[in-house]
Amino acid sequence: MATTRLPSAGFSITIRIGVFADASAIGRLTTCVGEAGAIVTALDVVDSDPTTVVVDLTCDTADATHADSVVKALEALEGVDVRKVSDRTFLLHLGGKIEVTPKVALRNRDELSRAYTPGVARVCLAIAENPADARRLTIKRNTVAVVTDGSAVLGLGNLGPAASLPVMEGKAALFKRFGGVDAWPVVLDTQDTDEIVRIVQAIAPAYGGINLEDIAAPRCFEIEERLRELLDIPVFHDDQHGTAICVLAALTNALRVVGKRMQDVRVVVSGAGAAGTAIMKLLLRQGVGDIIAYDRPGVLHAGLKDLPASWQWLVEHTNRDGYQGDLSGALRGADVFIGVSAPNLLTGDDIAGMAENSIVFALANPDPEVDPREARKYAAVVATGRSDQPNQINNVLAFPGVFRGMLDAHAEEFTEEMAIAAARAIADVVGEDKINPTVIVPSVFDARVAVAVAAAVRAAAQSSAAIAAVDTSAP
Amino acid sequence: MATTRLPSAGFSITIRIGVFADASAIGRLTTCVGEAGAIVTALDVVDSDPTTVVVDLTCDTADATHADSVVKALEALEGVDVRKVSDRTFLLHLGGKIEVTPKVALRNRDELSRAYTPGVARVCLAIAENPADARRLTIKRNTVAVVTDGSAVLGLGNLGPAASLPVMEGKAALFKRFGGVDAWPVVLDTQDTDEIVRIVQAIAPAYGGINLEDIAAPRCFEIEERLRELLDIPVFHDDQHGTAICVLAALTNALRVVGKRMQDVRVVVSGAGAAGTAIMKLLLRQGVGDIIAYDRPGVLHAGLKDLPASWQWLVEHTNRDGYQGDLSGALRGADVFIGVSAPNLLTGDDIAGMAENSIVFALANPDPEVDPREARKYAAVVATGRSDQPNQINNVLAFPGVFRGMLDAHAEEFTEEMAIAAARAIADVVGEDKINPTVIVPSVFDARVAVAVAAAVRAAAQSSAAIAAVDTSAP
Repeated sequence: MATTRLPSAGFSITIRIGVFADASAIGRLTTCVGEAGAIVTALDVVDSDPTTVVVDLTCDTADATHADSVVKALEALEGVDVRKVSDRTFLLHLGGKIEVTPKVALRNRDELSRAYTPGVARVCLAIAENPADARRLTIKRNTVAVVTDGSAVLGLGNLGPAASLPVMEGKAALFKRFGGVDAWPVVLDTQDTDEIVRIVQAIAPAYGGINLEDIAAPRCFEIEERLRELLDIPVFHDDQHGTAICVLAALTNALRVVGKRMQDVRVVVSGAGAAGTAIMKLLLRQGVGDIIAYDRPGVLHAGLKDLPASWQWLVEHTNRDGYQGDLSGALRGADVFIGVSAPNLLTGDDIAGMAENSIVFALANPDPEVDPREARKYAAVVATGRSDQPNQINNVLAFPGVFRGMLDAHAEEFTEEMAIAAARAIADVVGEDKINPTVIVPSVFDARVAVAVAAAVRAAAQSSAAIAAVDTSAP
Repeated sequence: MATTRLPSAGFSITIRIGVFADASAIGRLTTCVGEAGAIVTALDVVDSDPTTVVVDLTCDTADATHADSVVKALEALEGVDVRKVSDRTFLLHLGGKIEVTPKVALRNRDELSRAYTPGVARVCLAIAENPADARRLTIKRNTVAVVTDGSAVLGLGNLGPAASLPVMEGKAALFKRFGGVDAWPVVLDTQDTDEIVRIVQAIAPAYGGINLEDIAAPRCFEIEERLRELLDIPVFHDDQHGTAICVLAALTNALRVVGKRMQDVRVVVSGAGAAGTAIMKLLLRQGVGDIIAYDRPGVLHAGLKDLPASWQWLVEHTNRDGYQGDLSGALRGADVFIGVSAPNLLTGDDIAGMAENSIVFALANPDPEVDPREARKYAAVVATGRSDQPNQINNVLAFPGVFRGMLDAHAEEFTEEMAIAAARAIADVVGEDKINPTVIVPSVFDARVAVAVAAAVRAAAQSSAAIAAVDTSAP
């Protein structure tokens, strides 16, 4: 049931080709690449002589196998000489994607004396005397740890710490680009819950917040909960809360598009791991009509025994009518499908069986639960997690602004109020007059998003700090 | 026996002053500051009207108390109104001294697709398949962890992790400025040896090297030794090896100045902690005549019982004649004093009792073992650790180049051969024709230093890799 993958910039290659320079030479190349299913995105002449032209042809392909077949198709053309194939994604990753840059000039002895010894000694002593000054006089002010054990890397599974590093570096780059937050990858060579908790606690003094990332469920729940207890800085598991915020924002606007209300819709969620559980908790908190949760044991219902704690909680709070059939059956008549699970679980027929004006969020990465082209034939609103499709539900809409707001508020914890405020802020960036089935979330490049989210989170932090202050002063 | 501190840029303040604008107004201010013992380094007019001038006067002071007395002296002048005092060192530290910067552009969806999902997934899979690719495709290529438990911060003692952060940030800034190395502060909220070892092992996948920093002896020895066993990246304790390399370089040139040979000199080392022990080991390896080691129990000699392992080793390898007196006595007739211990242990008289053409390295920071102005009256060569004095023996001469070389060589360990090669490289940057009693080490701003050290370390790494390869292939 594998869906044909779509060509994307993530699989872009640049092919250096020498070709006999007749009038149709370049046309034959681009036609060949197009017929092989790739999309030409750039063509640069790099050399020529009276009989030959050498070009760099850049095209998006669907995957490595597809890229190979494109190159083979070109090689089969008469008078064509493929000289080199470069993978632009790998080229971009050479040497890593982030660097550490001094913010202070170190041009002469004076500057060295202030930034380092002997001047720095006074700053150390000031912090030793008043530890709160670390937020003023060190990187703690603006720095977040992006922590993973590599156990659930993207949709790829348990790749371990080294192989997770490109994702964490990318995340750090996004933190800075979109939120002005300094983020640093902490990839841990352990998958033991106690050790992870202890290590994060030990490294915490340098950070103003902890972003947990790509840690498998159910371990991630315990790690997050224990760290929240132990630390006086916010702990945010992006796979849970970032995803839940973005889904709530997208669903808010999708319901506006189809004219349904939160309390009237039945939602099917495939994937009751970190993301799915957080999404369901937030939707229940928002009063959604009913939810059916689906995962490895099938649809979760009260008849299942010996479930882990997180699933037991879901059994008690979802599936009001006790449905016990399969996923396709659960979808029949449902208003909303939210997939945070695995590629290609559903066909267009499954989507066709949903209620009128259905909403499909197929968020598995890199390959969605259902081919979005198929889903669009039947659903009123379709969203995916891919950056090369419309309605990209991408956590980058949430996490940079959420941390920007928490850091600026000197928040000591991440709260559900912040999540709801952030989701509302994201949804509201798409003006009422701009919403349509292909625009339910703002572009990740919309500069207003992080600013709006940060302001909303900061306000939520300050109002809960105010409440806490009142509570403390109560008799 | 407290020495008068010298004014330094590390204690520079900027004072905003309004003064009645007669012809001698500015002169009275600078005279007053000079008479108060501070050094005027800048004077900027910020505002004026027909009767008044407002200036920012910047001056180096000796310490916070001295700065207060300078301000009070100004306030006592007639017609002078002190409006604000800013501490330039604290201003420079606001918000921290390093930041995390993306090396990749994230301007549009294409770029996002390559740096993050879906493109990044392929890079993750490539590393999962071939872990050695992490050195090519991630920050591991160029990144070092600067690890501390805050137990021995500068000469200030056990300040803990948060208060050590300004030093570690400064170190990271120096790593980039002088070696092009990305370094990240890891300040640990634990001082348990087992935990520190386990944590560093767990965070290691993201790093190409570990720089241990400001960890108290003797714990630092065990931590370093165990991590060397466990990790396949170099582990370098800068307080030990960085200091030892710089001292060996400085001593090599100081001996050239006074015309003595390594094997003929008697050296007294005050401080048998991390730095002192490493210095003594390296000097013994270089065949120095004799060493007397001094620490809390006094001079180390064979009559002392129940010593920790590191001191027991020293007892067996130093103090050939079994001297049992005090530090001043040990210095009588000695050729070299090396202090890596505590401020103001010695007076000019102690230095006067040393051999002809004595060499004094008083490296305690921020205040040396002996006032360098006193020491210079009697010793032929005097060096300190201060950036505001000539002959600054500063680890920044070593660590950026050492790690640059190790990273470039993909070295798996730091070796004694690298230390000796690095020391020779530093010493040789000062040409034979440039050496004199005030120039035994190059300036930390001499761009040739890190390049020379890196090349020497890389060559040493490659020759030991070649030897290891031969060993492996032996029957």
